[in-house]
Amino acid sequence: MVEAYEQLVAEGLLESKTGAGTRVAARVAAAGAAGAGRQAASERPGERPGERPGDRREDGRPHYDHRPTSPDLGLFPRQAWLAAVRHVLALLPNDGLDYGDPGGVPALRRELAAYLGRVRAADASPDDLVIMTGVAQGMSLVVEALVLDRGRRIVLAVEDPTSTRMLPLLRRAEAEIVPVPVDHEGIVVGALPDDADAVVVTPAHQYPTGVVLSPARRAALVEWAARTGALVLEDDYDAEFRFDRDPVGCLQGLAPDRVVLAGSVSKALAPGLRLGWIAAPPHVARAVRLARGESDLGSPVIDQYVFAHLIEGGAYDRHLRRVRREYRRRRDALVGALAEHLPRMTVRGISAGLHLYAEMDAEDGSDPSGLAEAARAAGLSAEVVTSAHGSPGLVIGFARLPAHRVAEAVRVLAKNAGGDVRG
Amino acid sequence: MVEAYEQLVAEGLLESKTGAGTRVAARVAAAGAAGAGRQAASERPGERPGERPGDRREDGRPHYDHRPTSPDLGLFPRQAWLAAVRHVLALLPNDGLDYGDPGGVPALRRELAAYLGRVRAADASPDDLVIMTGVAQGMSLVVEALVLDRGRRIVLAVEDPTSTRMLPLLRRAEAEIVPVPVDHEGIVVGALPDDADAVVVTPAHQYPTGVVLSPARRAALVEWAARTGALVLEDDYDAEFRFDRDPVGCLQGLAPDRVVLAGSVSKALAPGLRLGWIAAPPHVARAVRLARGESDLGSPVIDQYVFAHLIEGGAYDRHLRRVRREYRRRRDALVGALAEHLPRMTVRGISAGLHLYAEMDAEDGSDPSGLAEAARAAGLSAEVVTSAHGSPGLVIGFARLPAHRVAEAVRVLAKNAGGDVRG
Repeated sequence: MVEAYEQLVAEGLLESKTGAGTRVAARVAAAGAAGAGRQAASERPGERPGERPGDRREDGRPHYDHRPTSPDLGLFPRQAWLAAVRHVLALLPNDGLDYGDPGGVPALRRELAAYLGRVRAADASPDDLVIMTGVAQGMSLVVEALVLDRGRRIVLAVEDPTSTRMLPLLRRAEAEIVPVPVDHEGIVVGALPDDADAVVVTPAHQYPTGVVLSPARRAALVEWAARTGALVLEDDYDAEFRFDRDPVGCLQGLAPDRVVLAGSVSKALAPGLRLGWIAAPPHVARAVRLARGESDLGSPVIDQYVFAHLIEGGAYDRHLRRVRREYRRRRDALVGALAEHLPRMTVRGISAGLHLYAEMDAEDGSDPSGLAEAARAAGLSAEVVTSAHGSPGLVIGFARLPAHRVAEAVRVLAKNAGGDVRG
Repeated sequence: MVEAYEQLVAEGLLESKTGAGTRVAARVAAAGAAGAGRQAASERPGERPGERPGDRREDGRPHYDHRPTSPDLGLFPRQAWLAAVRHVLALLPNDGLDYGDPGGVPALRRELAAYLGRVRAADASPDDLVIMTGVAQGMSLVVEALVLDRGRRIVLAVEDPTSTRMLPLLRRAEAEIVPVPVDHEGIVVGALPDDADAVVVTPAHQYPTGVVLSPARRAALVEWAARTGALVLEDDYDAEFRFDRDPVGCLQGLAPDRVVLAGSVSKALAPGLRLGWIAAPPHVARAVRLARGESDLGSPVIDQYVFAHLIEGGAYDRHLRRVRREYRRRRDALVGALAEHLPRMTVRGISAGLHLYAEMDAEDGSDPSGLAEAARAAGLSAEVVTSAHGSPGLVIGFARLPAHRVAEAVRVLAKNAGGDVRG
């Protein structure tokens, strides 16, 4: 087994550094800026649908890219997970190992419905929940269900700027993407096209700008959805990590008949678990459950029972409290170091999540790509954000950088970038 | 947790009997006979695509059906699995918990390529393998890749009779289904339509009739695929369980450029693990890997490392030898009991798998549905098989019925069915 890992490293699929700020992650590379206007996968000439130049390395493998929203996997609760597996394997009846309900094992849906109600002010019964392999599959299958329902490719509004990683996936599911600007209150609801079948939003912590969707915008968005009949897809990607106060409740709780809430354990536990959920209006939940019953037959069951046990016994809450404290320390350290060494960067957004968003000084004129590269060279996970509607910025992940190493990394970055270096 | 299981039972999603012949399994019910001729999902008027009358119970949940091919989950190696989880969690680098390669963790693909070469005479490198959540997802995504490649719904030949459970899934993936007869040598290659884009076959142990695809037919099938450019989808669903001799090597090893081999641990370990694979020509493997990178981002990683460890350490082979012995005993007992108590049934097919196929005496005239019902009442897992091309038969699962209980169950069946009861 150890040899196998060494082989992984040799193949460049894993990076052997531990505790460093960045690593390689397996995923088809992000491609296509949000600001590119309406364009669907099959409309790009000369390419396989869903594939783009840069999607592959020369050997045909997908790219492995850095992602600033990755959690510190050193914080994964291995002992608690193993104990829960032991517990489940000791108690699970044999039948529990059979094909599960394609919508997810009822025990987990029950625990999760209660948890989401308590922690995210969601309004969902266990039957409204479908266990997914993550937010990505949730979005894919909801879009697919809408496409089946409409009998045509759907028009899907997305925030601009947004996570470009989601776009190939949405296009594959036959969505025509329409970017809609984001300001300091979140998505500009007035700019939503009335012919959109759905909109993807990140109300708790907009990705990448870090703003919270304001109460007025929440009301306006729900009103827009009710008026146009559109569905709101709420990507609740890092809502567990609000550091300065309790997180704002989810949008789904305000309008359970119009909003699909999608979440996962990818930030709180580990992306490799591929364990997430949607809470959806009954007809959407039913369509997605059917889709899983007619494609992959649902998620693996043991991990679902394990996660249910971790929620039920309180271990999940305890874990979240622990990592929330740790991430807050790291974010504070990064914000402080940036203020000290790179005052020309302005940190935007709330104290939350696993990344922060820094805007460049408009009069600075430095090249954001150069800065991102310097940041990566300094051991920070960073990406440039471009938008059709705003000024360029930098997303910097802080989850994987221990607080005591932040100052030095930012000092190196400032030096490399020719910034204002003090001390 | 225990309460949660009781709730499952109360909801009727799990059956609390253990060791009995049948149980409820979560899956959208089988629907649509193979013999219904060409018909695609979206061509059925008045229905949601992919959905059929009978797909749902009155409360909107999918049906939970008995399946005669289910393994005995009491044989699942819980201790070995737990030990492997402990091993993996002790040794896996943190980065191993991140997003995995959407095609599967390389360690597992390497182990599996060697295993399939050794046990199934497959001819696949680790790069030709994509780890899937099972044969169902493998078939779905290969069909989807073909549809994307052709730019239209594909024509897909299937064996008749076949497993009707696969049909809704193939239709959802936009396949137009063409049934092709099966005789004592397997699928009648001469009856394959030349306009088929692909054909799904079960060469090792045809489902449900239990015949092995003959050497002449194998050669003819490969020749047909080469001539027409079609892809052969080889469902290797229970190839580990050949009782009288070593299993025939897979078709994929004969023509790796034209055949996609799909397998899983659903019979050998447990369906709830949702762990399977395809071995495919490079362009198909690449397309399926990309599809996973743009839909569900690949399979959960811990179980992949666990399975790799079980193969590498020999525990998987040892487990297979143990359960193969046990299933052979159960099959022999069932064959013997049928010969004794129901001589008007003729068992067809090789000594293999987890089910047997029994044809009714042509002059008997009994109602196969009545017989299946009587079998289920006697604690046997049974399904009627109808075919456009052959006489009706009965599929009887034997995996979940301990050998010492078989004789009594068959005696009850024979009595209920008004059969020839002796002793």
